[in-house]
Amino acid sequence: MTSLSRAGRLFGIGLGPGDPELVTVKAMRYLQRATVVAYFAKAGRCGIARTIATPWLSHGVRELPLHYPVTTEMPFDGDDYVSLLGAFYAEAADLLAVDLAAGQDVVLLCEGDPLFYGSFMHLYSRLRDRFPVEIVPGVTGMSGCWTAAGEPMTWGDDVLTVLPGTLAAGALRERLAGSDAIVIMKLGQNLPKVRAALDAVGLLDRAIYVERGTMEGQMILPLREKTDDHAPYFAIVLVPGLGRRP
Amino acid sequence: MTSLSRAGRLFGIGLGPGDPELVTVKAMRYLQRATVVAYFAKAGRCGIARTIATPWLSHGVRELPLHYPVTTEMPFDGDDYVSLLGAFYAEAADLLAVDLAAGQDVVLLCEGDPLFYGSFMHLYSRLRDRFPVEIVPGVTGMSGCWTAAGEPMTWGDDVLTVLPGTLAAGALRERLAGSDAIVIMKLGQNLPKVRAALDAVGLLDRAIYVERGTMEGQMILPLREKTDDHAPYFAIVLVPGLGRRP
Repeated sequence: MTSLSRAGRLFGIGLGPGDPELVTVKAMRYLQRATVVAYFAKAGRCGIARTIATPWLSHGVRELPLHYPVTTEMPFDGDDYVSLLGAFYAEAADLLAVDLAAGQDVVLLCEGDPLFYGSFMHLYSRLRDRFPVEIVPGVTGMSGCWTAAGEPMTWGDDVLTVLPGTLAAGALRERLAGSDAIVIMKLGQNLPKVRAALDAVGLLDRAIYVERGTMEGQMILPLREKTDDHAPYFAIVLVPGLGRRP
Repeated sequence: MTSLSRAGRLFGIGLGPGDPELVTVKAMRYLQRATVVAYFAKAGRCGIARTIATPWLSHGVRELPLHYPVTTEMPFDGDDYVSLLGAFYAEAADLLAVDLAAGQDVVLLCEGDPLFYGSFMHLYSRLRDRFPVEIVPGVTGMSGCWTAAGEPMTWGDDVLTVLPGTLAAGALRERLAGSDAIVIMKLGQNLPKVRAALDAVGLLDRAIYVERGTMEGQMILPLREKTDDHAPYFAIVLVPGLGRRP
C-alpha cells in the first residue's frame, strides 16, 4: 500500500466495543492488510483499540502509538487542558502526515465508532483537507454494553439521551429528567456525581452499571448494588426505556 | 444445529446499517452456519435485514418471513394499532417457538442493532423466559449514516439526543432545543413536521438528510436542499455536535 505517485490514505477504523469478533468484516479486511497502524493510548499502556485489533494484524506491521499527555487533575474546560491536548493532537497529525505524504496508507485504530466521541475526530479534522480519508463505522461501546446486559434500550417513541458523565451535576440532573432511555458515558471519577444525579431524579433503581462490556472481566450489576466509587473511564450506566410494547 | 435433547437457541443478529461488509465477524459466522432464518418485512417485500444477509447465507437455508400487518393510516398510539401489532408479534413468537421447542436453532435477522428500536425486542420479550437467547450487537443505522456523511457527531461534553420523528411537533421542538447533537429517526411521512420543528428552533441550517446510508442509492444532502416531502421510513436527519475540540 505504498506508492510514489499519490498521497497515502488515512483509514479511521471502528473496532467495536471490545470483543475482537465484533469488528466488522470490512474492518477485519483493512486490519489484515494494514502495513502501518496508529492508535491512541495512555503512556505505558497498550490501549483498548490496539488490544482489540491484535488477532487481526499481520506480523511485521509498523506501529505508531500516540500516547496521550498526562492530564489527571486538570479541569476539562481549563485553558491548560485544551492547549496541552491541542498541541498533542497537532503533533500526532504531523506524525501521520509524514507517512501519508510519502504515499503510505495509515490505519488509525478506533475503539467503538470513530465519529462518536472518538479521538480519531481530532486527527480527521486536521488531516481531511490534505489527504484522502476513509472511515469504517463500528459497533459502539454502548451497544456492546446493552447487549451484554440483555437489555432492550429503546421502544416505540422512546427518546434516547447519551450524556457524558463529565457534565456538571446540575446539567446532568436536568438532562436526565427529560429522557426516556439514557446512556451515561465517561464515568471514571464521575461515578459518585452520576449516581447522585440519578437518585435525585428518581432513576437510580432503573440504572444498570456495565464495566468492560463484551470483554474479559465484564461486570454488570444494578447501579444500586455498586456501592464503591471506583469505575474505569469507559464504564457505562444504562437506563433502558419503557416505551410502547405492542 | 438440531438436537432432540435440548431446546433450540434464538439468535438475534444485528446486521448493521446496510452494507453487507458492515456485519460483524461474529454475525457473519452465525449467518454462514444458520439452517433456519427468520426476518421481519413488509408484505411483498424482501426486507432490509434479509437483503443485507444475502451474501452470507448458505444455500438451502430455511426461511421464515414475518410479514408486518398493514398499518398505514393507523395512529401509532391508537388501540387498534397496538392490538393488531400485539397479535402479530404473538403469532410470530409462536411460529418461532415451534422450531425452538423441537431443538432447532433460529437466527432472527435484524437491521442495525437488535436492541435499539428493533422489532426483535418484541419476540425477545416473548421468548426469553422459554428459550436460550444470544444477541449479537450491530453497527446502528445512525452510525452508518454519519459515517457516510463524513460528519463527526459528538465532541467532548456533547449530549446526543436520538428522537423518533413520530413524536408530536411540540415534543419534537422541546427535545431539539435542549440538545447538542441530534439524530432523528423514523422519518417517512414525518419529514415535513421534522423540518418545521428544526426550523422553529433554529437548527435547520445544521441539519443533514441521509437516505439509504451505506447502501446502493445512498443520498446525502443539507436538509435545507431537500425540498420535497418524500422520505423512506429509515431515512435519518443528523445535526452534528459542536462541542470541545482541542
